[in-house]
Amino acid sequence: MSPKITTELLKQLRQAMKSPKYVQEPVQAYIVPSGDAHQSEYIAPCDCRRAFISGFDGSAGTAIVTEQHAAMWTDGRYFLQAAHQMDNNWTLMKMGLKDTPTQEDWLVSVLPEGSKVGVDPFIIPADQWKRMSKALKSAGHDLVPVKENLIDTIWADCPQRPCKPLITLDLSYTGVSWRDKILALRSKMAERKVLWFVVTALDEVAWLFNLRGSDVEYNPVFFAYAIIGMNTIRLFIDGDRVMDPAVREHLQLDSTLEPEFKIQVVPYGSILTELQAVGTGLSPREKVWLSDKASYALTEAVPKAYRYLTPYTPICIAKAVKNASETDGMRRAHIKDAVALCELFNWLEKEVPKGTVTEIIAADKAEEFRSQQKDFVELSFATISSTGPNGAIIHYKPVPETNRTLSMNEIYLLDSGAQYKDGTTDVTRTMHFGTPSAYEKECFTYVLKGHIAVSAAIFPNGTKGHLLDSFARSALWDCGLDYLHGTGHGVGSFLNVHEGPCGISYKTFADEPLEAGMIVSDEPGYYEDGSFGIRIENVVLVIPAETKYNFKNRGSLTFEPLTLVPIQTKMIDVNLLTQKECNWVNDYHQKCREVIGAELERQGRHEALQWLIRETEPLKVQ
Amino acid sequence: MSPKITTELLKQLRQAMKSPKYVQEPVQAYIVPSGDAHQSEYIAPCDCRRAFISGFDGSAGTAIVTEQHAAMWTDGRYFLQAAHQMDNNWTLMKMGLKDTPTQEDWLVSVLPEGSKVGVDPFIIPADQWKRMSKALKSAGHDLVPVKENLIDTIWADCPQRPCKPLITLDLSYTGVSWRDKILALRSKMAERKVLWFVVTALDEVAWLFNLRGSDVEYNPVFFAYAIIGMNTIRLFIDGDRVMDPAVREHLQLDSTLEPEFKIQVVPYGSILTELQAVGTGLSPREKVWLSDKASYALTEAVPKAYRYLTPYTPICIAKAVKNASETDGMRRAHIKDAVALCELFNWLEKEVPKGTVTEIIAADKAEEFRSQQKDFVELSFATISSTGPNGAIIHYKPVPETNRTLSMNEIYLLDSGAQYKDGTTDVTRTMHFGTPSAYEKECFTYVLKGHIAVSAAIFPNGTKGHLLDSFARSALWDCGLDYLHGTGHGVGSFLNVHEGPCGISYKTFADEPLEAGMIVSDEPGYYEDGSFGIRIENVVLVIPAETKYNFKNRGSLTFEPLTLVPIQTKMIDVNLLTQKECNWVNDYHQKCREVIGAELERQGRHEALQWLIRETEPLKVQ
Repeated sequence: MSPKITTELLKQLRQAMKSPKYVQEPVQAYIVPSGDAHQSEYIAPCDCRRAFISGFDGSAGTAIVTEQHAAMWTDGRYFLQAAHQMDNNWTLMKMGLKDTPTQEDWLVSVLPEGSKVGVDPFIIPADQWKRMSKALKSAGHDLVPVKENLIDTIWADCPQRPCKPLITLDLSYTGVSWRDKILALRSKMAERKVLWFVVTALDEVAWLFNLRGSDVEYNPVFFAYAIIGMNTIRLFIDGDRVMDPAVREHLQLDSTLEPEFKIQVVPYGSILTELQAVGTGLSPREKVWLSDKASYALTEAVPKAYRYLTPYTPICIAKAVKNASETDGMRRAHIKDAVALCELFNWLEKEVPKGTVTEIIAADKAEEFRSQQKDFVELSFATISSTGPNGAIIHYKPVPETNRTLSMNEIYLLDSGAQYKDGTTDVTRTMHFGTPSAYEKECFTYVLKGHIAVSAAIFPNGTKGHLLDSFARSALWDCGLDYLHGTGHGVGSFLNVHEGPCGISYKTFADEPLEAGMIVSDEPGYYEDGSFGIRIENVVLVIPAETKYNFKNRGSLTFEPLTLVPIQTKMIDVNLLTQKECNWVNDYHQKCREVIGAELERQGRHEALQWLIRETEPLKVQ
Repeated sequence: MSPKITTELLKQLRQAMKSPKYVQEPVQAYIVPSGDAHQSEYIAPCDCRRAFISGFDGSAGTAIVTEQHAAMWTDGRYFLQAAHQMDNNWTLMKMGLKDTPTQEDWLVSVLPEGSKVGVDPFIIPADQWKRMSKALKSAGHDLVPVKENLIDTIWADCPQRPCKPLITLDLSYTGVSWRDKILALRSKMAERKVLWFVVTALDEVAWLFNLRGSDVEYNPVFFAYAIIGMNTIRLFIDGDRVMDPAVREHLQLDSTLEPEFKIQVVPYGSILTELQAVGTGLSPREKVWLSDKASYALTEAVPKAYRYLTPYTPICIAKAVKNASETDGMRRAHIKDAVALCELFNWLEKEVPKGTVTEIIAADKAEEFRSQQKDFVELSFATISSTGPNGAIIHYKPVPETNRTLSMNEIYLLDSGAQYKDGTTDVTRTMHFGTPSAYEKECFTYVLKGHIAVSAAIFPNGTKGHLLDSFARSALWDCGLDYLHGTGHGVGSFLNVHEGPCGISYKTFADEPLEAGMIVSDEPGYYEDGSFGIRIENVVLVIPAETKYNFKNRGSLTFEPLTLVPIQTKMIDVNLLTQKECNWVNDYHQKCREVIGAELERQGRHEALQWLIRETEPLKVQ
């Protein structure tokens, strides 16, 4: 992978930063965040501005360009990838390391006195704006909104914003109608005494209306906003997508409805003016509810006195707790996904020794097997198919320049998942097709111990996920090892594979307490730069736990693995496991054998079934 | 313990809240925080305003009185105590429970529209003022400073502010001179480009000048402020304390000094006007550094543009990392403390069967034994000497009305500590003088497993203490049990027994990363209301750990127990321990036997030595 040459582009951007065509006064720095106007993690090609200007196309990163410098902040998952993809014009700022300055501190250290720092007000979340603006102001600088996106002004062949057809989801998938979701939302609004709610996140719009789209790869969402009043519903969406009879029927656009459920369809681009109109019509004590991660532009559209901002919206919190229809769907999706992976791993075991399987071929084969399953829609993220040293690039995606051939001598790490109409999957398995070294087995076993420590943890109702993160690391820490990413993220139900408001991470972000019905991933790892990567990931469902006692009647929770794919026993050093951990592995494999075995049988996939039976043989303590 | 009758006092306070003598406009609510003007946790009698108005005298709590209501917020340590000490005028707000409103939410729910909420601006920290003021404003109310403290206006026999002699500490105790501490502080100020630093916390003033006092019981501090400039030192302190020749010599008040080390002694009460003078003399970019927990009054004295606020001051952070002289002193103090406790427990074992030892007698005896040790100054907090159901009152202090007699049938919990001139101790042991039940042993063993999990934890350099908290709870959680307090707090060096900026807690306060030389407590517990309390507490020193590998060259840390007092093996259900946990207990007891045994021998305390040898017999796995 050779870095993108950005000398010319940076020159053009620096010209735009001074051009009266775009800025009233020159800006001495310009911030290019990752996100789109909805603060999405996964974005459409037209929104990949940070990748365009820098070459670094990982999912998280912020670029800042000054007259002299160009710097990129990203986290531990992407240190290697960013270093590979960016040319010498760029300085990599490794977030999470002790000596890495924050963006604000760095700006203050490099800017001349009284500088202006520009940013697109639609792309920067309001909470980030506030923090950065305050820090800059206290050092004598100013953060200023630049209406025209400066990257767009130099991006000659910028792709069009997508506008693809919608998918309607009936009650058998969603469990709750959009009308009942609106009702529940309005009752939360009444509780907080707000009159309006602005839906800005794409997955929240999709969830609220029981619609899905395909405007963004991997995330079944579509570009839209909504403003929900106590008696009105406005959906901001472009194109003839709402002319589809199925969509009209689903949204009851042509029915005679109580007025409070009548959906007004409004052009996507009119959100700012419509929201400004809502804002000016307010009287005291009439509030507008927005996420504090909504864009600065939309937040500013509502006068400060009328704003009600929260870190998580009631939709985000309701969406995280899956109902019975959703968990049933997630279970079905994970069974199908496991069938595909049994097929894949059986196939790899036969093909790898021939020396013809590359990372890309393996990833394609995984997609092929998944696509054979019922209700398959697309992948849920770019498959991480990595062997040997590529495995240490935490969010690696094979491309022709880096594509390695799987061999009998290297560890292979596959982190992959799919969108099915009934659920979203995300699973990582790490395998060896020959004989792993003692050291590889040792590291794998520490990671496994961490995975089990989280999966089998019992904890009180109301515990926040970040309190479980250290369980995943303890075995690694004991030997001086660690991994530089969080342990788990929320997973959507046929929605984004990463969703809030819960997770398992050492970062003390404001995660919401775990409750039964939430779904998160459990994915500790260990990575050795230049050598190998190990990660073991299941998607797990939060369920009530039975305990011997029940302190203060609080009740306890634990996890049930939804992912049912064998964990390669060849990689385990059984001597490092406790009896309890051994039993966990054996019980897990017994369940894989029963549940996935039955489905493989039903689908007539006999060879994969034999593979499954071999791979789920109980561990024997030596 | 009968509750304080507060009907008449509340009536008087409500009159003061409307009296033009004290308030320009009537206030509909008045907040009475715990603290003093230095935001101290332990306060002088003249500052115990919240206890005076409510009767509740625990170390943490905030009272709010409105025209109709009186409510008290406190945390899990004090639920029972507060309920016992307050009469029916008061509503107890149990912080940490899901349905308990915050003070702001509660105020908004009970106040009539457009209310004024009063508070003493010297008592409320600036960060709390800001949060509360914002919340009230957004609901249409106002937080207003009331200059005259309204409690003082109705407190007829309010005691005088203490003004006791100072103790000077030489280099053998402190390791660093006050001049070098001032130099280090000025270099931190230069790094952040601030010209002035305001020392507001009493332990920070004491640490900076290597002085101690006794104005506040248990905390060897004295009422003072300091303002440090790049070339000036102002110490705000009252009385003839600085006339003491030893103090004058220590502070070099009569020497010819470089002007930047010349200390100007200024009256305590002039801090506000002096700080206002500093604030008005500033030009742009000249900042004044304050803790964001400094009082609202002092913070407001500096114009906003010139304020530099941080959650922890450079003094707080430097003070937390003990140097070699300080850790040596802490070791010595803990050896002496262990000698005293061996004597006490040996004595209790003989006396308890006679039925004559009450909680108060036991506490007094503990103090007597401690006071026999060299350099003993005073206790470091009120001894928690509690048996049976009193043990479930987490911060219980025996008083005649509650005083129980220790018996062969109840668990006894002793949480105690002392100030020695060379260090501060804090230790909890839970014992049974007869035969504990299987259930008591089970609970004790879970708590012990949690204690060991923290004490033996190995973790990367830079880990924050809150990431270790769940280790202490895991064994309890597995059985549905838990405890409603944090696991550990920073401990001062002949200073406050509770100090920041590090700790071990599920609360995600902004704790600073742990580093070698920091000292914290490790004190998980389990409490059953009406039955018993269990807590096992050691003070532990953060030390570098040797590990098999060393990921990213970060280095690892672990803890070394400074407390060396046997953990009663009779209370342990050995079958619930792993081999590793068993070994930990045996190694710990071996060290107690060696180190404390040698000191008992040296002091000629042969009976206590025999007790120590009996109590440190190795555990045998059954």
